[in-house]
Amino acid sequence: MAMVCLSDFEAYAKKYLPKIAWDYFAAGADDCTTRDENILAYKRIRFRPRMLRDVSVMDIRTKILGSEISFPVGIAPTGFHQLAWPDGEKSTARAARAMNTCYIASTYSTCTLEEMAAAAPGGLRWFQLYIHRNRAASRRLVCRAEASGFQGLVLTADLPYTGKRRDDVRNGFRLPPHMKVKNLEGAFEVCKMSPLDPSVTWNDIYWLRSLTRLPIIIKGILTREDAELAVKHGVQGIIVSNHGGRQLDEGPATIDALVEVVEAVRGRVEVYVDGGIRKGSDVLKALALGAKCVFIGRPALWGLAYKGEEGLQDVLRILQDEFRLSMALAGCASVSEIGQHLVQSSKL
Amino acid sequence: MAMVCLSDFEAYAKKYLPKIAWDYFAAGADDCTTRDENILAYKRIRFRPRMLRDVSVMDIRTKILGSEISFPVGIAPTGFHQLAWPDGEKSTARAARAMNTCYIASTYSTCTLEEMAAAAPGGLRWFQLYIHRNRAASRRLVCRAEASGFQGLVLTADLPYTGKRRDDVRNGFRLPPHMKVKNLEGAFEVCKMSPLDPSVTWNDIYWLRSLTRLPIIIKGILTREDAELAVKHGVQGIIVSNHGGRQLDEGPATIDALVEVVEAVRGRVEVYVDGGIRKGSDVLKALALGAKCVFIGRPALWGLAYKGEEGLQDVLRILQDEFRLSMALAGCASVSEIGQHLVQSSKL
Amino acid sequence: MAMVCLSDFEAYAKKYLPKIAWDYFAAGADDCTTRDENILAYKRIRFRPRMLRDVSVMDIRTKILGSEISFPVGIAPTGFHQLAWPDGEKSTARAARAMNTCYIASTYSTCTLEEMAAAAPGGLRWFQLYIHRNRAASRRLVCRAEASGFQGLVLTADLPYTGKRRDDVRNGFRLPPHMKVKNLEGAFEVCKMSPLDPSVTWNDIYWLRSLTRLPIIIKGILTREDAELAVKHGVQGIIVSNHGGRQLDEGPATIDALVEVVEAVRGRVEVYVDGGIRKGSDVLKALALGAKCVFIGRPALWGLAYKGEEGLQDVLRILQDEFRLSMALAGCASVSEIGQHLVQSSKL
Amino acid sequence: MAMVCLSDFEAYAKKYLPKIAWDYFAAGADDCTTRDENILAYKRIRFRPRMLRDVSVMDIRTKILGSEISFPVGIAPTGFHQLAWPDGEKSTARAARAMNTCYIASTYSTCTLEEMAAAAPGGLRWFQLYIHRNRAASRRLVCRAEASGFQGLVLTADLPYTGKRRDDVRNGFRLPPHMKVKNLEGAFEVCKMSPLDPSVTWNDIYWLRSLTRLPIIIKGILTREDAELAVKHGVQGIIVSNHGGRQLDEGPATIDALVEVVEAVRGRVEVYVDGGIRKGSDVLKALALGAKCVFIGRPALWGLAYKGEEGLQDVLRILQDEFRLSMALAGCASVSEIGQHLVQSSKL
Repeated sequence: MAMVCLSDFEAYAKKYLPKIAWDYFAAGADDCTTRDENILAYKRIRFRPRMLRDVSVMDIRTKILGSEISFPVGIAPTGFHQLAWPDGEKSTARAARAMNTCYIASTYSTCTLEEMAAAAPGGLRWFQLYIHRNRAASRRLVCRAEASGFQGLVLTADLPYTGKRRDDVRNGFRLPPHMKVKNLEGAFEVCKMSPLDPSVTWNDIYWLRSLTRLPIIIKGILTREDAELAVKHGVQGIIVSNHGGRQLDEGPATIDALVEVVEAVRGRVEVYVDGGIRKGSDVLKALALGAKCVFIGRPALWGLAYKGEEGLQDVLRILQDEFRLSMALAGCASVSEIGQHLVQSSKL
Repeated sequence: MAMVCLSDFEAYAKKYLPKIAWDYFAAGADDCTTRDENILAYKRIRFRPRMLRDVSVMDIRTKILGSEISFPVGIAPTGFHQLAWPDGEKSTARAARAMNTCYIASTYSTCTLEEMAAAAPGGLRWFQLYIHRNRAASRRLVCRAEASGFQGLVLTADLPYTGKRRDDVRNGFRLPPHMKVKNLEGAFEVCKMSPLDPSVTWNDIYWLRSLTRLPIIIKGILTREDAELAVKHGVQGIIVSNHGGRQLDEGPATIDALVEVVEAVRGRVEVYVDGGIRKGSDVLKALALGAKCVFIGRPALWGLAYKGEEGLQDVLRILQDEFRLSMALAGCASVSEIGQHLVQSSKL
Repeated sequence: MAMVCLSDFEAYAKKYLPKIAWDYFAAGADDCTTRDENILAYKRIRFRPRMLRDVSVMDIRTKILGSEISFPVGIAPTGFHQLAWPDGEKSTARAARAMNTCYIASTYSTCTLEEMAAAAPGGLRWFQLYIHRNRAASRRLVCRAEASGFQGLVLTADLPYTGKRRDDVRNGFRLPPHMKVKNLEGAFEVCKMSPLDPSVTWNDIYWLRSLTRLPIIIKGILTREDAELAVKHGVQGIIVSNHGGRQLDEGPATIDALVEVVEAVRGRVEVYVDGGIRKGSDVLKALALGAKCVFIGRPALWGLAYKGEEGLQDVLRILQDEFRLSMALAGCASVSEIGQHLVQSSKL
Repeated sequence: MAMVCLSDFEAYAKKYLPKIAWDYFAAGADDCTTRDENILAYKRIRFRPRMLRDVSVMDIRTKILGSEISFPVGIAPTGFHQLAWPDGEKSTARAARAMNTCYIASTYSTCTLEEMAAAAPGGLRWFQLYIHRNRAASRRLVCRAEASGFQGLVLTADLPYTGKRRDDVRNGFRLPPHMKVKNLEGAFEVCKMSPLDPSVTWNDIYWLRSLTRLPIIIKGILTREDAELAVKHGVQGIIVSNHGGRQLDEGPATIDALVEVVEAVRGRVEVYVDGGIRKGSDVLKALALGAKCVFIGRPALWGLAYKGEEGLQDVLRILQDEFRLSMALAGCASVSEIGQHLVQSSKL
């Protein structure tokens, strides 16, 4: 079977992953409306392509927080990569480095962040964290991330409690015994009461700020009000995200929320988006609407499930080729030429 | 089979209830457009969730007409509960009391209101009534309700005649011989000409007022004009309802009508809504749009059909957990923090 | 099988009519978009029902051009009733008289207009005509209609040529040899070149006016411009119609066009509508949007196909009951209380 | 099987063509959204038909760049006609001449342009070209076209690179060995690196202008900005086109883009449209929205696949009959009477 587009990897993963793992990765909250809307919302946006521009030399590189990446697609934080491929997050780290892009490693990884760093030295990586009831545990994670060369901290803001994913409840989802949430080993028992602190507020960003010199990126913002608060509390970046539709169902699609957030931020910090990216032209739409970069979640897992590091590179390469082609067909030779004029949307 | 969400109870009831009973409970008028719209209209409303608010202590209690309930979901009046479970409305009354919420008992119950009161003493109950051609019969019901400790009277306004429910006509629906509309025994023969009085007008509320000191809640209002009349005629509450889509087909979905009614009422009386509630987040949407409380109809019957009192508690507990979770994920720690800012809707 | 709603008659007719006859009656032009839109457009209109009005005495009678009918539903002109029932238009005439409503007999009937008059003396009937190349033939029809007691002339304006109905082309539709377009026998050969005159213009209404004292109703108007011209040329009534979606595909649904026409006419002549009526509540919507009366086409044929005169009466009786019930549930006790306030529509 | 409408030819071609050829002709870029939108967008436009106009004498002729054609439908440039019929573009040329309309021959023909000219001397033909890296090759094509009597040059602007058509990638599409891109034989090897020049800009139109006295028509314009540039650079005509949805997916449907382009052009040059034409009434809509003429792509190939020259004539004749009929039913006796007043559209 030829792997031509990302759906091919999805079909492969659905066929070959254990049902419980597939269901976990695919899960959305409640009716999965937001999970699916993330994708559908892209389809409602139309390009306004321009013709007869010199697109013979294409430059698709960009920078995020000062670091150059080969194209504006990074890897979003998702948990438990060993469910998809034996080497887990080590493969993910290697693929991201090979493709010269950014990998946001999840707290809920099945490798330690030191193992990822060792697997792909020199790769651009950010570390995603939650704030735990046990603040000392969170502080240790921050220190370890900084010490291991991670270059950004991504604070997830949309998970005071875990969303209700019906299939996981039905399946009684839990990690197989031979896998561990290694970053947290010793800190507390993961499978009991949630270690995450639902009392976290904006002021905790100041606390986080006091722990590290790494830039702080906040993930999970969906409204202009929160975007304004994020800027005011001094974050360096915002990831517009609804956690892949896994938390509050029937919130906005991320590409729709992006417009509102970008407008509120007015260029003061970088804005990224995840959720629903399935084609290179989706990336182009997100950038046209103001994102500096997008991050892919499930498609990265499909790539891992297909062939580990190599499969994930395949996924990224396809997105890269599609993104370059859609840019050219829309009349843009470099990322700096992408702008809102390229799209029309019922939201604009 | 795990009972994870309300649809699981629906599937159970459809499978195990006699077809004629399932059809009766499921029936909508004519093409069932409004019945289905009640549900679809919720799906068109999007949340605007807020992040990083302290949601460690959740308070989901509310008050209706001064009485505290454990969360803003009560049980709407529906008829013939013995069709779902042998103990009928006695089970319903017990489940409502166990969950500390309000049960609106229907005139068309298969237990008397005294039996319900005896089954669950101290529970918060309102009594639903129609105004009959035989006014003496209506007056007797009002007195019995007041004497039995019911704390509110719910006047149904949308049934001068019964809607055309095609399946009931095809099935020749009628109660099995061993069940009775017990509240009306002796008053008149139910199966002949409708005992309901289609000449009722707003002035009859004054007559009802003269019979009782109980608060009067009017059920079936769908327009701003009628909401204004309801307030003017001195009711204490309004239930925005289209009778579960069983009366006039192709009227508005109740969640859409709620916006108009709330706007007209301007806080002068409490406004509630029923129809289409299937998830905890639907409750959150209704409250965000101004409802003080919602009432569930068919889901309560599915719970009864599953396991009687216990099954109905399961349904309520799931709604409660989902409501609490969706509140937290939207950034609200107590019901008082819920407001219109939480939703965006094409109707707003 | 119980005949509960009009769809039951449709299903019956589809099952028992010869395919070529069913296809002919069901046919729409081209992709059948307008035929289907006629129905769908009704579903997009929502009622705003009013409560607690005295609807104990219902009066559903109305008048069209001064003649009282039992309820505002007449029978639209359709051809070849013998394809549905052996007695053809004689049965139709008898059913219309029995139900005390108006029957518009088609030029393309399989009985003569004299036979219809004889079959149901005293019934309210209008005669539908085209203007033929052979004006003498048209004049003779007008005289015969007037002489036979028909009380209105309905000029069809939307058929300069016959629409392209793909199934009729595929089936090679033509009348079986034992049926005849009896009204035209002797006038010209029907199966050759179309006898209809595509050069007809508004001025021909003056010619028609000169032939008869009967009121002239023009059928097939869909725009405000043509409505204005119709009034200006002195017609007594307008039927908003797209010929059941059988002529120009992808014109407007008739209920949508009605709004525009009613607005243009400003009460100077009566406005009727046909196309897409399938339930009593559709009639209520049409009246709320300004129609004086509606006419049914295909449903009348389904009734004939079911049981001739008796089946058509069944159809009319169901519509009558449904119309009365929907009026009551919307809070109207008589036709004069129906108004635009009863509906909300994206068109308004 | 009767060939009644264009879908019949589509069904035939899908059934009888080799899968690889069918897939190539049917292909759209990526998810095929734009390919399908081209058709769906027509269905969203509604006519406002006018009645009682004299349509006894119909004149459907029009002129494009001064040349009269029998009706406003020409043949869009598509490649590799031998995949559909052994005689390839020679048959196409003959059919176009027989129907007295315009044929735009593709650079990627499987016959030379001289062969086409010889096959149908005197026919109205335009030649479609790309600008090649090898400018001499392009210049030679221009000269040959002019010398062979082609009367217009159509510069395709939307293919700096070829769109991603998944099925072609999966099928490994390439021409069978016995077919050749004959126009380019000797110029360069087609199957290697794309010979097309992605550095082409608007200034190259001046270069093209310097090579020939033929009118230049630019194909692939979708925005008002590019329409303005086209006029400014002196083209004689614009074809609003998205390459049948085969280049950038999720750009606008052509009939939607037409409105914007026509508005920008303000009559300074002729505007045409291709993509999604499937019925005569689609032609009428395009003309009502300002197109001077439409061009059909895939339907022409289906006609060829059915019966070569004869099959294509069948397709054109059906479109012609449908167009004439829809004009008459909308109340227009000649093309000059067609205008924006005939349609209503959410875009207007």
